[in-house]
Amino acid sequence: MTPEESKAVATRGFATHSEEGGFEPFEFTRRAVGANDILIEIEYAGICHSDIHQARNEWKDSMPTNYPLVPGHEIVGRVSQVGDAVTKFKVGDIAGIGCFIDSCRECVNCRNGHEQFCVKMAAYTYNGTEMDRVTKTYGGYSDKYVIDENYALKVKADGDLSGVAPLLCAGITTYSPLKRFKVGPGQKVGIVGLGGLGHMGVKIARAMGAEVTIFSTSPSKEADVRSLGADHFVVSSDPANLTPLAGTFNMILDTVSADHDVNQYLALLGVGGAMVVVGVPPSPNQIHALALIFGNKTLSGSLIGGIPETQEMLDFCAENGIRSEVEVIKPDYIETAYDRTIKADVRYRFVIDMKNA
Amino acid sequence: MTPEESKAVATRGFATHSEEGGFEPFEFTRRAVGANDILIEIEYAGICHSDIHQARNEWKDSMPTNYPLVPGHEIVGRVSQVGDAVTKFKVGDIAGIGCFIDSCRECVNCRNGHEQFCVKMAAYTYNGTEMDRVTKTYGGYSDKYVIDENYALKVKADGDLSGVAPLLCAGITTYSPLKRFKVGPGQKVGIVGLGGLGHMGVKIARAMGAEVTIFSTSPSKEADVRSLGADHFVVSSDPANLTPLAGTFNMILDTVSADHDVNQYLALLGVGGAMVVVGVPPSPNQIHALALIFGNKTLSGSLIGGIPETQEMLDFCAENGIRSEVEVIKPDYIETAYDRTIKADVRYRFVIDMKNA
Repeated sequence: MTPEESKAVATRGFATHSEEGGFEPFEFTRRAVGANDILIEIEYAGICHSDIHQARNEWKDSMPTNYPLVPGHEIVGRVSQVGDAVTKFKVGDIAGIGCFIDSCRECVNCRNGHEQFCVKMAAYTYNGTEMDRVTKTYGGYSDKYVIDENYALKVKADGDLSGVAPLLCAGITTYSPLKRFKVGPGQKVGIVGLGGLGHMGVKIARAMGAEVTIFSTSPSKEADVRSLGADHFVVSSDPANLTPLAGTFNMILDTVSADHDVNQYLALLGVGGAMVVVGVPPSPNQIHALALIFGNKTLSGSLIGGIPETQEMLDFCAENGIRSEVEVIKPDYIETAYDRTIKADVRYRFVIDMKNA
Repeated sequence: MTPEESKAVATRGFATHSEEGGFEPFEFTRRAVGANDILIEIEYAGICHSDIHQARNEWKDSMPTNYPLVPGHEIVGRVSQVGDAVTKFKVGDIAGIGCFIDSCRECVNCRNGHEQFCVKMAAYTYNGTEMDRVTKTYGGYSDKYVIDENYALKVKADGDLSGVAPLLCAGITTYSPLKRFKVGPGQKVGIVGLGGLGHMGVKIARAMGAEVTIFSTSPSKEADVRSLGADHFVVSSDPANLTPLAGTFNMILDTVSADHDVNQYLALLGVGGAMVVVGVPPSPNQIHALALIFGNKTLSGSLIGGIPETQEMLDFCAENGIRSEVEVIKPDYIETAYDRTIKADVRYRFVIDMKNA
């Protein structure tokens, strides 16, 4: 054992070992805390729908699962150790980790703070490798994480942190496009889909000052409109509900990952309006030029956010008292939570309590 | 004959009477010059591809042709008479007319200067009606036009006006999206298609300070790169020419009206890049969410421009010495010009000399 290896951080996580699923305790080591690293004692890890796809190897060859897999990229915890060169964190601080933990730091996208689009490919928080392209990464369904301080986020929060964890993916995924398209007072914003992403979109768009309409196929969720801060609720499965809204929205954020026709929402945009998709349905949409030309309309996409914008989002959420609505679970409930997430039977995010795991 | 009718303006134009085509002299009257109207002695009218579609009734039921048809919505001429309440023009001024001549003036889009999207539908310059929804409109292939001063544009120009006429449609169609997406110095802009629209896009993007690449299927047009001010020329029919350019463009303006795959150009956009379509191919494109999500990319559309922006474009072109490259023809050449336009055998816009017609 080299001196470096002897300092490796013993970690206890929960891993799945095959497509068939089933999470079990899994012991592994993380790298020794380097000069620029911090060690985070994980308190909560959110369950993102992509965890499920990855755990069940549903992306197949496009992103094959390297078992054993410890998912989790919505991570919040407390700093218990800092490297000699660390300046951003001190022991006791609350820190977050999102979808990636490192990147090349040199390419145009890294330099512009869009590390998620690192030309050399960022190091994903799990089911990837460190930038050495060798050391396998394990995610947040575990009790510790060692990460370069530049890729960890500062969290200002008091008390229970469970509602903070989902900000690291669901929060930034919705904040980034709402910010990019300058959502604000006097604007009408539609949020399509009221799940983990959608409910964060509602809260953030509302905090930005917009009038928010939820489009959902689940009539039962209408009861939550007020508590989430939305202004209107539209059952989107009946086209007759959409027709009167034609041409009235400044921006529509589409969080749905199931196949659906985006044209019905493009029609709801006013002149110069923008629709942004953050979900990835399996099939493409048929878009006719006229659907965009009449009204100078925009269809755009958005993928999480870079480190600077993720920090900005966390600060924005702290200032505006925004957290995710969560159902806190123990690790032995992960498989059940996965099944319920698929059925949209969660309001609105499962979060694993790793503090007491 | 009422006193009003007696003041109607005798006009001589060139009309086609059926889908089979053939333009003939056609005499008609325009309304008497009202208090807010100006009378323009038309000098030049550009031939827009949409003139051809309309003349040959190719849009069928979606915009049927009301024969006899006098096309032309790229109009420039001199003011010969002004109504009592006119303030913007005086006799002798140079004035332009674009794709519409009036609108409701009350809806949100009219109030915002987006009259082309008038909720009650703008009055098209030809093959439409005035806002009375009764009086048929005839276009610029004629010697006179009577128009409300608020829907005419001021033109600052010396000498020959033939290169100014196409600005009223081709110019604003390309200026508006380039402006909306803030094209400027340090940016790489692609122009897809080098026809009437595309060559204006090149000139305007260059004047805005961008580095401009032309994508064309016509290798023979490479010779024009320098005279148009473009920096690069890419023969787009060979995909191998596009691959090395992946992720390098800030903005791509797509002027092509034939069916083609926009995905090959979306792939050329860098992070946050935007592609804008202004041509209307018959078939829709298949757009997968991932093509937009990876890179926060935007696909947008754009339709001409409102009166304020059209005026801004004309002023911009005057300040930057931008005119269309034109081939000036007599009215007896219209049919031939149509056939040559369809074959892309024009550099880059036919303009009819109405001054000497």
